[in-house]
Amino acid sequence: MTLFQGLIGFPITPADSNGHVDTGALAALLKRLTDAGIDGIGLLGSTGTYPYLTRAERRRTLDAALAAVGDKAPIMVGIGALRTDEAVELAKDAKAAGAAAGLLAPVSYIPLTKHEVFAHFKEVARATDLPICIYNNPGTTHFTFSPDLIRRLSELPNVVAVKNPASPAEAARAELDALRALLPPGFSIGCAMDWQMTEALIAGADAWYSVLGGLFPELCLKIQRAVAAGDVIEARRIDASLRPLWDLFREFSSLRVMYAAVNALGICDAAPPRPVLPLDAAAQARVGEVVRGLEENGALRWH
Amino acid sequence: MTLFQGLIGFPITPADSNGHVDTGALAALLKRLTDAGIDGIGLLGSTGTYPYLTRAERRRTLDAALAAVGDKAPIMVGIGALRTDEAVELAKDAKAAGAAAGLLAPVSYIPLTKHEVFAHFKEVARATDLPICIYNNPGTTHFTFSPDLIRRLSELPNVVAVKNPASPAEAARAELDALRALLPPGFSIGCAMDWQMTEALIAGADAWYSVLGGLFPELCLKIQRAVAAGDVIEARRIDASLRPLWDLFREFSSLRVMYAAVNALGICDAAPPRPVLPLDAAAQARVGEVVRGLEENGALRWH
Repeated sequence: MTLFQGLIGFPITPADSNGHVDTGALAALLKRLTDAGIDGIGLLGSTGTYPYLTRAERRRTLDAALAAVGDKAPIMVGIGALRTDEAVELAKDAKAAGAAAGLLAPVSYIPLTKHEVFAHFKEVARATDLPICIYNNPGTTHFTFSPDLIRRLSELPNVVAVKNPASPAEAARAELDALRALLPPGFSIGCAMDWQMTEALIAGADAWYSVLGGLFPELCLKIQRAVAAGDVIEARRIDASLRPLWDLFREFSSLRVMYAAVNALGICDAAPPRPVLPLDAAAQARVGEVVRGLEENGALRWH
Repeated sequence: MTLFQGLIGFPITPADSNGHVDTGALAALLKRLTDAGIDGIGLLGSTGTYPYLTRAERRRTLDAALAAVGDKAPIMVGIGALRTDEAVELAKDAKAAGAAAGLLAPVSYIPLTKHEVFAHFKEVARATDLPICIYNNPGTTHFTFSPDLIRRLSELPNVVAVKNPASPAEAARAELDALRALLPPGFSIGCAMDWQMTEALIAGADAWYSVLGGLFPELCLKIQRAVAAGDVIEARRIDASLRPLWDLFREFSSLRVMYAAVNALGICDAAPPRPVLPLDAAAQARVGEVVRGLEENGALRWH
């Protein structure tokens, strides 16, 4: 299984108010992904609230997900932590449990220098031979990986992929091409930020790390497969039809919208970890309307 | 003892690479502060690396500090955490141990809304009657408290102070006056960012939350007392003489400089929690030269 290609869906991690994960609800979410034939699962990503869960809960969640998914899709799991020693232990846990890869973000409180982030990655990478994806998410970590830092990290043997924020459409191809020229052959350049992803795929991104794909995998696969088949008109048509959802993502964050969406579909009754709050009733109603439309009409509209 | 007035010093928290705190070295740092007659101690602030330590270590550190300091100075302790339930437990720990106050920052990974931060503070504040200082530190939390949010929080009975980043000199008085007009009488408005603090004190800040004051309390007290006595010329003279240190703070962060300083003075052999790294040898030499000058010549220059 090649993890760093195609559509990788990032589900929420349903948990109670004490941070105890509901592995049954998680299995229901994962079944939607494997039933759709998704290319990979991003477990305990940012939408999966990894920094809010204890190491023990993260291990229990990973074990449960691996048991639920079996060989139907590879699982990449978030191994980021505020302390380097914690991230090392999480990488070892991921390897021991049988994850296909680890997703490593430079979680920070004291703002980090490039040199510190490089040393952190080196220490975590050398702790196991787990394949590692660089998680470049300035919106949560407040650290931005320069192309040159990604290049230096790509020289570590098991650092094999990067998850970048998608660039705006007009810059996507030039930035991807420039980055690819710096990196070894086979190094995967994937992107996130669903509302800019159709253009990022058209520009040549290897993988789509998708929040929406963690709940509506068939829909996102339609876009991804259309681009792969060269049908950019169809990909853009579907993307444009999703504008009401992208607007909600931008207004409230994709994480808050996904909690409301999962609840609106009756899959579980989950709330994000406080201090993050559920959307208010009016916003929940807007999300519910959009996602019930996707769910009910999906078969007609996307197939 | 009135905690939210005058000079509050924030020492580093010496710890080993596993996050085990060296309470003996901490006691040596605290003795410098109480010997100087400091107005208060900011234990486990950002410079004290609170988010990098477990709840158990934070409690052990607080107990040791309270035992070392006794009634010589009140202790405010950092109670911030990524999860609301963790911050609630830390507030209860602080109250049970006997801290004079808690310093509460909205630690985040998912960026927080104003509404979420208000609800977080309300939940933590109502868990005990511990006096709470709002910790407004956008550089680490990536959340900025608006004057109106501080006003709303000041209506919670035990939220009694704010620690703001100091404004640039030209804006300091207008911003302090505008904020004070919104807040109840007696609510303390203190500031941090040592290199802008002399002007903040002259502009009327109630308290100086000081990193340098966590190692050189006499020096900082000279500035603070000079301003309190109306001698702004003397305060500015001392402040100007510290420019080489302020430059180091701005270039490397005050936390990294303080680790190098404590080591250069031979107080302990401490390193910040990884991924944060000690300064390189050249920068350490620069810090050593400056702080040894302060230590050796302090009696002549500042008294």
